[in-house]
Amino acid sequence: MAKKILIVGGVAGGATTAARLRRLDEKAEIVLFERGEYISFANCGLPYYIGGIIEERDALLVQTPEDMSRKFNIDIRVFNEVTKINREDKSVTVKNLKTEELYQESYDYIVLSPGANPIFPPIPGINEADNLFTLRSIPDTDRIKDYVDNRKPKAAIVIGGGFIGIEMAENLHYRGIEVTLVEMANQIMAPIDYEMAAILHNHLRDKGVQLILEDGVKAFEDSGKKVLLQSGKAVSIDLIILAIGVKPENQLAKEAGLALGEKGGILTNPYLETSDPAIYAIGDAIEINDYINGNPAMIPLAGPANKQGRIAANNIIGKRETYSGTLGTAVAKIFDMTVASTGNNERTLKQLGVNYQAIHLHPGSHAGYYPGAFPISMKLLFESNSGKILGAQAVGHKGVEKRIDVIATAIKGNLTAVDLKELELSYAPPFSSAKDPVNMLGFVAANILEGLTDTFQWYEIKDILQADALLIDVRDEIERDLGYIDGSINIPLGELRNRLPEIPKNKTIYVYCQVGIRGYIAARILMQEGYKVKNLDGGYKTYQ
Amino acid sequence: MAKKILIVGGVAGGATTAARLRRLDEKAEIVLFERGEYISFANCGLPYYIGGIIEERDALLVQTPEDMSRKFNIDIRVFNEVTKINREDKSVTVKNLKTEELYQESYDYIVLSPGANPIFPPIPGINEADNLFTLRSIPDTDRIKDYVDNRKPKAAIVIGGGFIGIEMAENLHYRGIEVTLVEMANQIMAPIDYEMAAILHNHLRDKGVQLILEDGVKAFEDSGKKVLLQSGKAVSIDLIILAIGVKPENQLAKEAGLALGEKGGILTNPYLETSDPAIYAIGDAIEINDYINGNPAMIPLAGPANKQGRIAANNIIGKRETYSGTLGTAVAKIFDMTVASTGNNERTLKQLGVNYQAIHLHPGSHAGYYPGAFPISMKLLFESNSGKILGAQAVGHKGVEKRIDVIATAIKGNLTAVDLKELELSYAPPFSSAKDPVNMLGFVAANILEGLTDTFQWYEIKDILQADALLIDVRDEIERDLGYIDGSINIPLGELRNRLPEIPKNKTIYVYCQVGIRGYIAARILMQEGYKVKNLDGGYKTYQ
Ligand SMILES: Cc1cc2nc3c(=O)[nH]c(=O)nc-3n(C[C@H](O)[C@H](O)[C@H](O)COP(=O)(O)OP(=O)(O)OC[C@H]3O[C@@H](n4cnc5c(N)ncnc54)[C@H](O)[C@@H]3O)c2cc1C
Ligand SMILES: Cc1cc2nc3c(=O)[nH]c(=O)nc-3n(C[C@H](O)[C@H](O)[C@H](O)COP(=O)(O)OP(=O)(O)OC[C@H]3O[C@@H](n4cnc5c(N)ncnc54)[C@H](O)[C@@H]3O)c2cc1C
Ligand SMILES: CC(C)(COP(=O)(O)OP(=O)(O)OC[C@H]1O[C@@H](n2cnc3c(N)ncnc32)[C@H](O)[C@@H]1OP(=O)(O)O)[C@@H](O)C(=O)NCCC(=O)NCCS
Ligand SMILES: CC(C)(COP(=O)(O)OP(=O)(O)OC[C@H]1O[C@@H](n2cnc3c(N)ncnc32)[C@H](O)[C@@H]1OP(=O)(O)O)[C@@H](O)C(=O)NCCC(=O)NCCS
Ligand SMILES: [Ca+2]
Ligand SMILES: [Ca+2]
Repeated sequence: MAKKILIVGGVAGGATTAARLRRLDEKAEIVLFERGEYISFANCGLPYYIGGIIEERDALLVQTPEDMSRKFNIDIRVFNEVTKINREDKSVTVKNLKTEELYQESYDYIVLSPGANPIFPPIPGINEADNLFTLRSIPDTDRIKDYVDNRKPKAAIVIGGGFIGIEMAENLHYRGIEVTLVEMANQIMAPIDYEMAAILHNHLRDKGVQLILEDGVKAFEDSGKKVLLQSGKAVSIDLIILAIGVKPENQLAKEAGLALGEKGGILTNPYLETSDPAIYAIGDAIEINDYINGNPAMIPLAGPANKQGRIAANNIIGKRETYSGTLGTAVAKIFDMTVASTGNNERTLKQLGVNYQAIHLHPGSHAGYYPGAFPISMKLLFESNSGKILGAQAVGHKGVEKRIDVIATAIKGNLTAVDLKELELSYAPPFSSAKDPVNMLGFVAANILEGLTDTFQWYEIKDILQADALLIDVRDEIERDLGYIDGSINIPLGELRNRLPEIPKNKTIYVYCQVGIRGYIAARILMQEGYKVKNLDGGYKTYQ
Repeated sequence: MAKKILIVGGVAGGATTAARLRRLDEKAEIVLFERGEYISFANCGLPYYIGGIIEERDALLVQTPEDMSRKFNIDIRVFNEVTKINREDKSVTVKNLKTEELYQESYDYIVLSPGANPIFPPIPGINEADNLFTLRSIPDTDRIKDYVDNRKPKAAIVIGGGFIGIEMAENLHYRGIEVTLVEMANQIMAPIDYEMAAILHNHLRDKGVQLILEDGVKAFEDSGKKVLLQSGKAVSIDLIILAIGVKPENQLAKEAGLALGEKGGILTNPYLETSDPAIYAIGDAIEINDYINGNPAMIPLAGPANKQGRIAANNIIGKRETYSGTLGTAVAKIFDMTVASTGNNERTLKQLGVNYQAIHLHPGSHAGYYPGAFPISMKLLFESNSGKILGAQAVGHKGVEKRIDVIATAIKGNLTAVDLKELELSYAPPFSSAKDPVNMLGFVAANILEGLTDTFQWYEIKDILQADALLIDVRDEIERDLGYIDGSINIPLGELRNRLPEIPKNKTIYVYCQVGIRGYIAARILMQEGYKVKNLDGGYKTYQ
């Protein structure tokens, strides 16, 4: 008999599941419930429509219910909310939001793809702030755009420095609005580490965004015209965007007695079955395993939601397939810069007590002699003994996400940090260098793992100087004019071999240069002369 | 005792070897011989300096002999040509090209990185053509640039459609010169297949380059003012660039009795030792193994030369390391387009009798709803049973080399075509789609390998129509107005389920759409209704 499959949620995960189900099974009865007016829309494009970069609202609607049901013969019910799962008789209760009518629908299988909702904390005055918006759906977008178009706000505050907050800050800025971005942590973009985020802090400030870090909202006053911060600061604005994160939509699952994780995500096995094997769950609503460390995590991204939808459909039709966890590969455009990352960051590795190494490089996006190259700040994290790649981050103007995609692929291929040196990546001057930045990470990793070089990190400098160590700047004198580390002496690399007598042998020598490469060469010279040497990873540029 | 290492050739492979040797061994005696005036220059930038895109000649000189010898304590001898290797007494004979003096230099190890020379065939009149140039070195570049700057040629012919020929065609065009490009084969860019090159043919012609395929030079007349082609055509021009390929500089090695391969490349073992273990050879001069099929090949690219230099240095210092073969990953900018490839092409696989499958896709470079996306034409080749990735090609305006680099990395990680569906690549609307083009290749490959779909290729259509098969165009009627395959009937996908009675069950049904996806959906519908169906791989767009 034909299978009857109910899908809850009609966007990234839900619509993909429906399409794949139909391709696999022409006879299945597929009903897609979406409580909103729209299915299959471009969540990720919403900020850019508000900013005017995406000009046509229609462009956000990847599939209309009509097109999709015609193409895929799917019973699509918008404005229909599934309010209850009745597992005992394998049915759901649905509310038609237009008629308020309730009805039942039986199922063989359910796929839950309800997504995640913006967090809406009980801050004093939040319910009275009539200029406060969150952004998830097309109606949210319409409301914000309408407010910007018609009320012409002069100043806005964006609360939250995750990618949605930053994208909103940028897009409101494009609309000519003075934007203040407030973030509780000491950095924006939690997936990357502080020193990498610092580059973005500068860029946002350069672009005219007011950035307030380590501060949160205490209260909204005057119907939202005034925002009081924890620090005592007060900001007067016309528009508030709240983007402090999302929480899984787990209500249905919870009430149905399905197992939830600690963070509230719906629990599934690798086949994406919940604790009830007739019910699958995918997307932002589920807890997945971190691909690197295996721990439970919530990673609300479109790529995983889409892939999980396809896997759930396969499993329902009997093509058994597992989901192997999420790396969290992500990218965001931030004005003229790009930030991308994959795997774990250093903060996470420290918390987990992993024995890791970090490398910072600043290679050019392509050959320096071909116009238009920009440095990319890259960070690679790998296990100290095995070289297993644990994570990577990159910030720059060009070619950033390419390198992260390559490393994300290397991780899936079980390549080690050292293997990166052998990757054969495409090279012509407009695109890369004969030694691609990713190869360069491999060379440096190999040198560290083989003991050819030892490095120290930017955050260790304070302690090193207090311990009265010798810190040598091997850059040329003119480079020092633009800044140097206090307490360092200068011996340019070209003079080092002749000035060895100046350098005492009885203590560890710390060397640094601009980006790390001359420091490495200096370290190699000194090590072979019997010195114990450490080179500043990433050089002055990372320290800065 | 300190090792004495002689390096022959001071550019990509040679200079890299020298630098790495010094970093590994502060005491080694390193002598670098270069017969030209320059070491360590940007070969790959030369066409762009002629075109004026790279403005400063100095930018081409990555390292000067002075800088490099100071930084690395290397004895660098420009204008010194090694003319003989005396293996019996472990010395070389060197000619000082300034003084004409000959001298001997002893060695413990030699590293040969002499590169490859432009092929210069004995075409009648070639020696009299005083406007004919080849391009390899800085002096070659100076000569061509000088000719363009001062003689202001109006029309040029470039002979050879490899990447150097095409780059020269483009750069001469930038200088306001009418360019004719002649190529013997039926396509330019030999590493990719015909239907992919066809896109570039159109682009070159759109840009105003005269493209003559399947024709070669028969003779040069009138001191090179006139070029007679095999076809009988005659082209009158002021400037000739000869770029029909390179041949390994094997003279020294040959005379020293070192083993050479069939194609004239110096033979090495995986440690890059020649048949004499005291002599290493790297770069364009050596024969390597094709990483995919294991056969001997000549792949003259900078990435491999640089990587081999580092490996040779490691081996000499005792850090044994092998070179695992060359994939041939390459990229070129061709006016506004990018072409990139890795691994084997279909031509090669056919010749070798490999049992392979091909996929053609035309996904967007990023999400279609975000402005500035362009289609990428992609081709993936994989082994029919195992799914082993054999090669990939891509042509488009944006994001082309990113996808090829990802696939090149997947190959090194032993991922199969099916594994590509699980890659977690970075997605935000300006950069990609939630299902990245590479994921899409994985989905399609999985569908083929699992028997969910069967495809036919653009070159099979003629035979299929002759066999009186039924060819159904499942696109909408208005799309047909812009062209369709003669002999096909039209049943739009949206009407297919209702029009099944029109379709006979007694023969194979061939379906097609614009790029392949609707054809696939149609095929899935028909297959489940009991039809035997094949979908046109890559759709009308690839056929066209
Ligand atoms: C502004 C914004 C920008 C983003 N940018 C990016 C980006 O650049 N890159 C990226 O990877 N990800 C991005 N994301 C995240 C991405 O959109 C999500 O990860 C993805 O959409 C999750 O898919 P999903 O199917 O789990 O949930 P959704 O796509 O949110 O779909 C869930 C749907 O289920 C419906 N629903 C919920 N409960 C019920 C019910 N009981 N009955 C009926 N319907 C129900 C909801 O109305 C909703 O439409 C962005 C998200 C937002 C909001
Ligand atoms: C115009 C052009 C564009 C290119 N573009 C690209 C590109 O975009 N991407 C890419 O990957 N590759 C490109 N290449 C190829 C790349 O430059 C080569 O693969 C690479 O330089 C090979 O390195 P090599 O060390 O083997 O030889 P080379 O770099 O050619 O160096 C060999 C040197 O050895 C010297 N020599 C030879 N014999 C002797 C001797 N007996 N004594 C002393 N010296 C000697 C020669 O004078 C020469 O300078 C390009 C090449 C050219 C010419
Ligand atoms: C629009 C939507 C319903 C499409 O779902 P879909 O049909 O699975 O996805 P696509 O249109 O990308 O097509 C992919 C399918 O076509 C196949 N395909 C793609 N190109 C093909 C080609 N040229 N030839 C043959 N098959 C092809 C793929 O194999 C895949 O099929 P499979 O899953 O059966 O293997 C769904 O992606 C969606 O709702 N997207 C918008 C919401 C969203 O994702 N938001 C978050 C990001 S903003
Ligand atoms: C210029 C040239 C001599 C440099 O050789 P090189 O010193 O080996 O290469 P790079 O300057 O790229 O530096 C790479 C080295 O620095 C190290 N390195 C790079 N960045 C580093 C950093 N931030 N911190 C520490 N080490 C770093 C790498 O590990 C590598 O050292 P290793 O080989 O000992 O592991 C050589 O590349 C050359 O001649 N190039 C021009 C010719 C050419 O390649 N032409 C073809 C392309 S146009
Ligand atoms: Ca430096
Ligand atoms: Ca199509």
